Amino acid sequence: MSYSEIKKLFRTPDEYIGKTITVPGWVKTVRDSKTFGFIELNDGTFFRNLQIVFEEGKLENFKEVAKLSVGSSIEVEGILVETPNAKQPFELKANRISIENLCPADYQLQKKRHSFEFLRTISHLRPRTNTFSAVFRVRSLAAFAIHKFFQERGFVYVHTPLITGSDCEGAGQMFRVTTLDMKNPPRTENGDIDYSQDFFEKETSLTVSGQLTGEAYAMAFKNIYTFGPTFRAENSNTARHAAEFWMIEPEIAFSDLKDDMMLAEDMLKYVINYVVENAPEEMQFFNSFVDKGLLERLDNVVNSDFAHITYTEAIEILKKNKDKFEYPVEWGADLQTEHERYITEQVYKKPVFVTDYPKEIKAFYMRINDDNKTVAAMDLLVPGVGEIIGGSQREERLDILEKKMDDMGLSKEDYQWYLDLRKYGGTKHAGFGLGFERAIMYLTGITNIRDVIPFARTTGSCEF
Amino acid sequence: MSYSEIKKLFRTPDEYIGKTITVPGWVKTVRDSKTFGFIELNDGTFFRNLQIVFEEGKLENFKEVAKLSVGSSIEVEGILVETPNAKQPFELKANRISIENLCPADYQLQKKRHSFEFLRTISHLRPRTNTFSAVFRVRSLAAFAIHKFFQERGFVYVHTPLITGSDCEGAGQMFRVTTLDMKNPPRTENGDIDYSQDFFEKETSLTVSGQLTGEAYAMAFKNIYTFGPTFRAENSNTARHAAEFWMIEPEIAFSDLKDDMMLAEDMLKYVINYVVENAPEEMQFFNSFVDKGLLERLDNVVNSDFAHITYTEAIEILKKNKDKFEYPVEWGADLQTEHERYITEQVYKKPVFVTDYPKEIKAFYMRINDDNKTVAAMDLLVPGVGEIIGGSQREERLDILEKKMDDMGLSKEDYQWYLDLRKYGGTKHAGFGLGFERAIMYLTGITNIRDVIPFARTTGSCEF
Repeated sequence: MSYSEIKKLFRTPDEYIGKTITVPGWVKTVRDSKTFGFIELNDGTFFRNLQIVFEEGKLENFKEVAKLSVGSSIEVEGILVETPNAKQPFELKANRISIENLCPADYQLQKKRHSFEFLRTISHLRPRTNTFSAVFRVRSLAAFAIHKFFQERGFVYVHTPLITGSDCEGAGQMFRVTTLDMKNPPRTENGDIDYSQDFFEKETSLTVSGQLTGEAYAMAFKNIYTFGPTFRAENSNTARHAAEFWMIEPEIAFSDLKDDMMLAEDMLKYVINYVVENAPEEMQFFNSFVDKGLLERLDNVVNSDFAHITYTEAIEILKKNKDKFEYPVEWGADLQTEHERYITEQVYKKPVFVTDYPKEIKAFYMRINDDNKTVAAMDLLVPGVGEIIGGSQREERLDILEKKMDDMGLSKEDYQWYLDLRKYGGTKHAGFGLGFERAIMYLTGITNIRDVIPFARTTGSCEF
Repeated sequence: MSYSEIKKLFRTPDEYIGKTITVPGWVKTVRDSKTFGFIELNDGTFFRNLQIVFEEGKLENFKEVAKLSVGSSIEVEGILVETPNAKQPFELKANRISIENLCPADYQLQKKRHSFEFLRTISHLRPRTNTFSAVFRVRSLAAFAIHKFFQERGFVYVHTPLITGSDCEGAGQMFRVTTLDMKNPPRTENGDIDYSQDFFEKETSLTVSGQLTGEAYAMAFKNIYTFGPTFRAENSNTARHAAEFWMIEPEIAFSDLKDDMMLAEDMLKYVINYVVENAPEEMQFFNSFVDKGLLERLDNVVNSDFAHITYTEAIEILKKNKDKFEYPVEWGADLQTEHERYITEQVYKKPVFVTDYPKEIKAFYMRINDDNKTVAAMDLLVPGVGEIIGGSQREERLDILEKKMDDMGLSKEDYQWYLDLRKYGGTKHAGFGLGFERAIMYLTGITNIRDVIPFARTTGSCEF
């Protein structure tokens, strides 16, 4: 069956007006009087609905159609006609409507407002609502925009492994992966679990970052990126934490922190532009019903040069305003979200890169600055969210990296392959991580991470 | 620092000839005589190397440069000049060469042939070799081609969950995901593991397929695809099985098995065309050094209409040739790889869709045909590999699906949400799965799955 897509009707109506077409879809609403009626039909290809008009004389099954319930699936054949005086630009005058599924009355998505909390309990149905169809179409477009951005620049996409035998940067708690019988696991003589009998013959976990293995590929391809799932077994039951989420981690060789920040700024602007251009209806919807200032804020991001400030400078500014904050401000302590938002929302009113953090609060692989107190790290703060990107120049000097690992009690043996990347043809290089869900929250104004993930996995919750 | 990329020099040389440029990269070879020398430099952006020529009078550090070791990283400034009578189209006449890293002599990737087995032990370095730089650039391009194909057709990309509380189609053994203390896990009164104290307060595993949750999204967006990692804890130590691999799973609503096969055929041709166009040097390399018939075989795929045959017809053909096979041929048994390859390589000499398999050997969700013996399933067989894609029309009839689940002993309660997709606005729909690594093996001629995954996870092996 050759179907016409509602999106194409709206984008290039001239190709369809006056023609007989067939459109399948789901019924959003039905209004009928005695001899004719209207159906708002959505086929999933577009945010807006197609109006179907049906008349008693023309349809064999007029009575059944007039009683169609919300959510039913149908196939409509008819002529597309212009409606110059109506809200919608055209409508489909039906000459045949086949009913594929008559949706029963206990369907939860009747035409009324539902809370996001309720909709989470029917995550398998919620993409059919306006809000979630907009969220997940934007999510899809943003994902593609990220690939497009990097591929156009010659970056190589690397699928870094998810199951890992190392604890990477030791960041966050990890999920164990095992095929051992939990009830009666094999044990060694001293009673420990005998992981040599596990699937991988060792202890394994789910990765928290693809960065380290990504670096290996940057030392071959110069510019690479990862885009894949990562996991955190943190017991954080907040609106911003999920146990399973997607990350984008580019890594660029022969590059320093400045190059890294330019890349992050270019990428963010590119993704915003792509989504605004390719999902205008959805973005307008968010701007009207979810977050009134959204489009203006995104516009401001695209059209401004991001600000740059060192951590030390940021601390000075924050100290002058310390009564505004709940958490204390002290050189050496990490910035809290309230501090980050103050800097980006009140001081700069645009995105800000904060650079050169104290080495003690950052990961071992970050490059030590000449002051020997700070590292070449950067966080990108954006209004409305706070930190959205974190990155750094990596320590490429083998001796300094080894000393740092010794100081932090990390096993050089476990990381031998990582040290090899410095020893053999090592170069200056840098990279960053963008949490994809945070980016989608930022792009849509949605404030709970559970509402931008198709089927969210959070503390105590793994449904569907 | 503004660097020029070697890829751009080769693609648009006219923009660079006669100009002073700076190129960073890694030394592949050095040849020197007393007063001048040549370096083959690779910067990771391109399969081919840039020839650097350096002279004693022009370089301050001529002696050090002449002694550069393989794998060292350098930065070269010079003028790009044409070399009409040489093998390479141009060379870079160096007037400055800065040495960033002098690669030590124990570097394993000296200029000689290494076995794939050895290179697997240095997976962090092997993308620097010709073969693996070609493999992983093709992998990146193929991944993008898949996204591009579906996005151009309006498909919505869905990130289906990886951690799951259900065992999906019950396909294959699964990895358990847990944060419980393995040594002393909490137990219920009767001694079982108390999973209510686990991170998700229930038993969880790594998914084997995103299909079922993908179907939920097809019932909202009509056309969707997934592209993400999946896991199998099968103890299969073969050249074709990995414990962690990536899958592409489109799902199309208002569509039947014919639409599904058209989509699969279009997709495969699109990806081949994209890779051949965008990685000509790499594909030529595979054709010359890995698999002599590769380009001809791919060309044949792109230019032929795929054949169609039912399982029953295939069995008849195979029975006539049964002495050619190790495994018996019998209606009702699954096809073995030798059977699949015979059909596609000997009978048709091109890709073949085999359809309508016995219902007993296929998954519960496949749509039962009117003969009540077979299901609307399809496998795509390709020369050189056998099965590369498996798909089906899904059972959309609620009563028939419920009966099938009862017959197979599946819990309708666990799958209530999946049954909802039929009950509420269900439509005919179909989909398929493409194992991404199998596709890369097919595209490159590489015969071991460990050699198309950056850091492979297989039985007993989880390194790096």
